[in-house]
Amino acid sequence: MSLELRLDNLFLPEHGIDRAHFDELARDRFPSVHEEIRRQRIEGRLGFYELPDGGDLVDSILQFAEGAGQAFENVVVLGIGGSALGAISLRSALLGPWWNEMSSEEREFYPKLYILDNIDPDTIGPFLRRLDLNSTLFNVVSKSGGTAETAAQFLIVRSMLEAELGDGYRRHLVFTTDSEHGVLRSIAREEGIAALPVPENVGGRFSVLSAVGLLPAALVGIDIAQLLAGARSMRERCDAQMLDGNPAALLASALYLADANLGARIHVMMPYSDRLRDVAFWFRQLWAESLGKGSGEGEPAVGPTPVAALGATDQHSQLQLYAQGPFDKLIVFLTVQQSEEDLEIPAAPGDHDALAYLPGHTLGELLRTEAEATQEALAHGHRPSLAIDFPKMGAHELGEFFMLCQIATVYAGALYGVNPLDQPGVELSKRLVREKLSGP
Amino acid sequence: MSLELRLDNLFLPEHGIDRAHFDELARDRFPSVHEEIRRQRIEGRLGFYELPDGGDLVDSILQFAEGAGQAFENVVVLGIGGSALGAISLRSALLGPWWNEMSSEEREFYPKLYILDNIDPDTIGPFLRRLDLNSTLFNVVSKSGGTAETAAQFLIVRSMLEAELGDGYRRHLVFTTDSEHGVLRSIAREEGIAALPVPENVGGRFSVLSAVGLLPAALVGIDIAQLLAGARSMRERCDAQMLDGNPAALLASALYLADANLGARIHVMMPYSDRLRDVAFWFRQLWAESLGKGSGEGEPAVGPTPVAALGATDQHSQLQLYAQGPFDKLIVFLTVQQSEEDLEIPAAPGDHDALAYLPGHTLGELLRTEAEATQEALAHGHRPSLAIDFPKMGAHELGEFFMLCQIATVYAGALYGVNPLDQPGVELSKRLVREKLSGP
Repeated sequence: MSLELRLDNLFLPEHGIDRAHFDELARDRFPSVHEEIRRQRIEGRLGFYELPDGGDLVDSILQFAEGAGQAFENVVVLGIGGSALGAISLRSALLGPWWNEMSSEEREFYPKLYILDNIDPDTIGPFLRRLDLNSTLFNVVSKSGGTAETAAQFLIVRSMLEAELGDGYRRHLVFTTDSEHGVLRSIAREEGIAALPVPENVGGRFSVLSAVGLLPAALVGIDIAQLLAGARSMRERCDAQMLDGNPAALLASALYLADANLGARIHVMMPYSDRLRDVAFWFRQLWAESLGKGSGEGEPAVGPTPVAALGATDQHSQLQLYAQGPFDKLIVFLTVQQSEEDLEIPAAPGDHDALAYLPGHTLGELLRTEAEATQEALAHGHRPSLAIDFPKMGAHELGEFFMLCQIATVYAGALYGVNPLDQPGVELSKRLVREKLSGP
Repeated sequence: MSLELRLDNLFLPEHGIDRAHFDELARDRFPSVHEEIRRQRIEGRLGFYELPDGGDLVDSILQFAEGAGQAFENVVVLGIGGSALGAISLRSALLGPWWNEMSSEEREFYPKLYILDNIDPDTIGPFLRRLDLNSTLFNVVSKSGGTAETAAQFLIVRSMLEAELGDGYRRHLVFTTDSEHGVLRSIAREEGIAALPVPENVGGRFSVLSAVGLLPAALVGIDIAQLLAGARSMRERCDAQMLDGNPAALLASALYLADANLGARIHVMMPYSDRLRDVAFWFRQLWAESLGKGSGEGEPAVGPTPVAALGATDQHSQLQLYAQGPFDKLIVFLTVQQSEEDLEIPAAPGDHDALAYLPGHTLGELLRTEAEATQEALAHGHRPSLAIDFPKMGAHELGEFFMLCQIATVYAGALYGVNPLDQPGVELSKRLVREKLSGP
């Protein structure tokens, strides 16, 4: 059983995608896009493709995690953006929302996992004050090694560790950074701190299946072998040269055509699953930072705006807009067909007709029924959507999903005519911060 | 000290708002909008305006909370959409992110606060299994009383409570619902369960300053008197008939003109404060559900798409798109000028020029500098934004902000020509759910 894409609500009259345009893209454009991506992959520019093959790195991660996972009560990731979103997704999707509130026994003695992906002192101050440094491992994640926010966090943590633990502080740190360059790599060498590599040809937002995501996952007992196996199986499906059989090509083409032909420039990812909420935020970075940019000298700026929503919750927040607002959105529904557990809804006290349709059903049924009903209601108003069904929520399925979205992103880059691997637009803000803090 | 709106980056050449259009709106349209809203308020259609006056209800909330707040270790809100987002915002903004992980002593013996705003059995199952029902108060919140998700949660919880506590289960429930109508009100009467009212003229998304938000807040020791005082002071500022002196009018007009004149239909709210992240999600409901709708028979659908972002984190996720993508966004930056605490960034080990600009500064300075730098960088690319500065993060300031956004929403409804109080677009999906579950 693997992830399934459903296009039944995509080709609608009036505001849906025109099947003829889709077929035209499949016939005339996709073959060259597929070939271009294959070429870039062979040239070694798309390192994320090869990460699921694992190899030595995975063995060393597992080895490190086995020792450290048992030695520490807390794992704290210091990272931001692509250095944090993968670990956050893995935690939410596979450990659930209550992990850090569970007892050691309930966690089967795996550590708690915290990810600090901002620099708000009102978050970090109380957190560090309450933390037992003796039983905590800090994983500092920055490919370049120079990310301002992560560096600031690291300097604070390093100083606290050294003050409390003396020379032994090194054993409470592990870096994930470029294998050769950058400040973190230098400090690792100088201070004798453990460090795992980020491959040179893997950018932050494509790094979830590198040590960036795998180390935190392994430390809390997530089955990273299954995660990688899932990614490999999706990669194989996406080797298909025919668009119709290639899930990543279908996803990229649907979203691209919604934008290019319908003006639906807002791409909503709406899981009906709490566990996938943070995964939608992972996608939001991948999609926005890869595709939102000028397409070249003098050409217009392009880029869809990804929005993360959550079903059923956002039916009581965003659905009114999705159902009756402008025709500027394509919604990607994510559903999980089989929850880990379920709860039956009992009868109401007394005799209340208004609630009579609920008892006897389960919460899981209600959730899935709401997802179906919302897709149907939108289609009824000629509002297109597509759906990705997870047979269940596990490491294999999540690995499939990560790879699906990453391949879809490089296809979409080719369709939009932009380089999905760079992010030149964030440099000015970084330079201004350095200038302001360096003083006159 | 109160909230301050800054418009310095709004009137920019090329892609900014044209000062002449703004002045024209202030002169020609705003007086009638202001008058129309004043009329609706006098007619009693906009009940949220009067909530800050508190009165008897606030006394009874405080009384109830004083007893219950001490008797229970956990407060669990069952609600969705407008019945949850206010309480979530209040918790995040005023208690911080670690409240539920703190010990009783650290919480000064106030209860933990959980808000279950979805029906995912993989969230609710493990939560209820771990919960000590004996020390838990459930606040069931639904104005209509018939919200499917909340009703389903309630039936499950009620049945568990009765099984474990027998007749005493009633003391573990308090409803917040319509004062006369609906299933919850009937059950409250029949079963003798405590129930607080939601005024008839206050809709879910405008209810944060009613018992919907105030009861959970009071139960965990939030200063609701200050919250209401802040709301009153903002309401007074928004009585101003001149647009220039009326913060809600400035906010509504800037966002409306961005959409109407520039095609910037995506309205990003981007706090540089972890505590305000959920507040941006509260705004997201208010703005989307109030403004996203057909403006009348045969007229085109309108409605901006609100997006919640978080600084500095999303500089590493969304900024690339905001800085170089299409000119379809207006960003509202929220900053907090004085954090509760701060952390100084110490020197790096060894001699690393790349990090030399950080030591000696604090995390708070870095965060505020990044907010400034990002606004400047966007303005440099002719991308407009506006800013709302919180002098600090407290109940008074949050009350001001809630009222600011609520008044801005009804102004915006008038500018867009839609009824900001209804949500007809969600009905079809609800009906389909009932039909599917009722069976043939």
